Amino acid sequence: MAGHAIGLDIGGTKVAGAVVAPDGTVVDELTEPTPETSDADTMTRLLLGMVDTLRDRQPDVVAVGVGAAGTVEWPSGRILWAPNNEYRDWAIRDELEKATGLPAVVDNDANVAGLAEARLGEVLYKEMVLITVGTGVGSGIVLDGQIYRGPRGLGAELGHIIVDPNGPLCGCGNHGCLESLASGTALTRTGREAAAADPDGAIARLARDKGVEVTGQTVTEAAVAGDPTARALFADLARWLGVGIASVTTIFELDAVVIGGGLVDTGELLLGPAREAAAEFAYATQVRPLVPVLPGTFGSAAGKIGAALLAMECA
Amino acid sequence: MAGHAIGLDIGGTKVAGAVVAPDGTVVDELTEPTPETSDADTMTRLLLGMVDTLRDRQPDVVAVGVGAAGTVEWPSGRILWAPNNEYRDWAIRDELEKATGLPAVVDNDANVAGLAEARLGEVLYKEMVLITVGTGVGSGIVLDGQIYRGPRGLGAELGHIIVDPNGPLCGCGNHGCLESLASGTALTRTGREAAAADPDGAIARLARDKGVEVTGQTVTEAAVAGDPTARALFADLARWLGVGIASVTTIFELDAVVIGGGLVDTGELLLGPAREAAAEFAYATQVRPLVPVLPGTFGSAAGKIGAALLAMECA
Repeated sequence: MAGHAIGLDIGGTKVAGAVVAPDGTVVDELTEPTPETSDADTMTRLLLGMVDTLRDRQPDVVAVGVGAAGTVEWPSGRILWAPNNEYRDWAIRDELEKATGLPAVVDNDANVAGLAEARLGEVLYKEMVLITVGTGVGSGIVLDGQIYRGPRGLGAELGHIIVDPNGPLCGCGNHGCLESLASGTALTRTGREAAAADPDGAIARLARDKGVEVTGQTVTEAAVAGDPTARALFADLARWLGVGIASVTTIFELDAVVIGGGLVDTGELLLGPAREAAAEFAYATQVRPLVPVLPGTFGSAAGKIGAALLAMECA
Repeated sequence: MAGHAIGLDIGGTKVAGAVVAPDGTVVDELTEPTPETSDADTMTRLLLGMVDTLRDRQPDVVAVGVGAAGTVEWPSGRILWAPNNEYRDWAIRDELEKATGLPAVVDNDANVAGLAEARLGEVLYKEMVLITVGTGVGSGIVLDGQIYRGPRGLGAELGHIIVDPNGPLCGCGNHGCLESLASGTALTRTGREAAAADPDGAIARLARDKGVEVTGQTVTEAAVAGDPTARALFADLARWLGVGIASVTTIFELDAVVIGGGLVDTGELLLGPAREAAAEFAYATQVRPLVPVLPGTFGSAAGKIGAALLAMECA
């Protein structure tokens, strides 16, 4: 397809939009905060407004792609449910096509981010899993160069594999999902426990000085600044991530596991202990090569680029 | 392909062979005990002898298929390594083709068993995972009607996903693999602990009366006979199996999880608590249907039937 596509990435805190060229270049972009009330009607209005603005600025748009957190039915593009958003059974693909007159595709946010990393990243992969570590833990599974979704798009939810059945409650309602132990939300929980146990510690002080509650962000800042308590919490999270990665590399035969999402900006703080645990729990390393665990090429832009790429391919 | 194929299933205690018709009917069969020394040379001689015997009895054989526990390189048919057998880097496909003059295929035992269940079972499946619970835990993943192996055959090892990183040592060298908690070997370990803790209990008595050490088999017999301690150990094992099943149904979008291997002969003793835990830990049941957990159609014959089926398709 010759023209450009719009890619929209619906996250918990913001909606990122971009006009993307077929080679993956972002030629224009736009970001809006996710409304407090993230129900389907509010979100539809927001998305249509962003598409209008981007098309006014870049008329050469031939398709629209959306990546959204949660369970997205494929290829119908209905967002059925998401553990951390309010929208439910939202037929966003139909609404976009009707309102814009353009072909549209809607997929899980980590699926499209995985596609961008596999097809357009610095290294190209045919067999790759992207794990995004942000508020939640998302995943995009690329097998033989294609996104694996399952027949209706309900598969590929690696954030909710069980890594400790006696583990903490997850946003999805289960206990001990990878997300409950290896996400920003997990860091909020362990950070608050640490702040309560040590009100004079760096984590509690950092939040108090800013006049905010302790969140994963507070712990991350304290860890980057070198606080040993925060670093230990970060190392715990990263170890759980590594345990999950080990299982993923046992199930699939991969060229790489790529880590995306906000927390990967901490670099080795996350990747170091994750790699260590992934190696410790890797299966049959006598005959199965250890799979590299690498940061993504596109960082938080992978979702909007991948959504546009998928729109160019499928819409 | 018109003629029959020989299917061979290499297990830890026996090698099962069969001559199979294209519709899956077993027209002849033969079983040999696995030699104490299961190195590549000994095993090759055994397999070639079985093929000769079966061809003498059924001359209409056009291909040979083998299913073997462990990591089998695909399509080369080299068995690289197995946690519970002695053979290492065994080029069995080449040896079979050279010695028999027939085309041969070699694959993981649970892969071919999964193929038999998906293609020839009472219910046909396009999206299905077979989990075999015997000495170890094996798996065959069927996606869109095809065995998923990964490009070199090194994927699909669901027995070695990590369900408890602080769990017991597995035969593979890791801690807390599904196999370390939900296999016959796990039952041997927990049964011995129970017998040591209660030398007058049913498990210890059953082994003493037979003049054998406690094994998973002892615990299974005591559980079937109604001993509450053995039943509790069995329920623990089955719960871990269910935790693993839950993760599998989160990763893949499946029509069914089929349970094979020797322990499934206990029926609801294994399947009841496994289903319960699989439901408890299933992801997003608001929108994702609960996946049925069912016993296989072919029981322990699935491996040899599937090996023959694969030989007819690929060899």
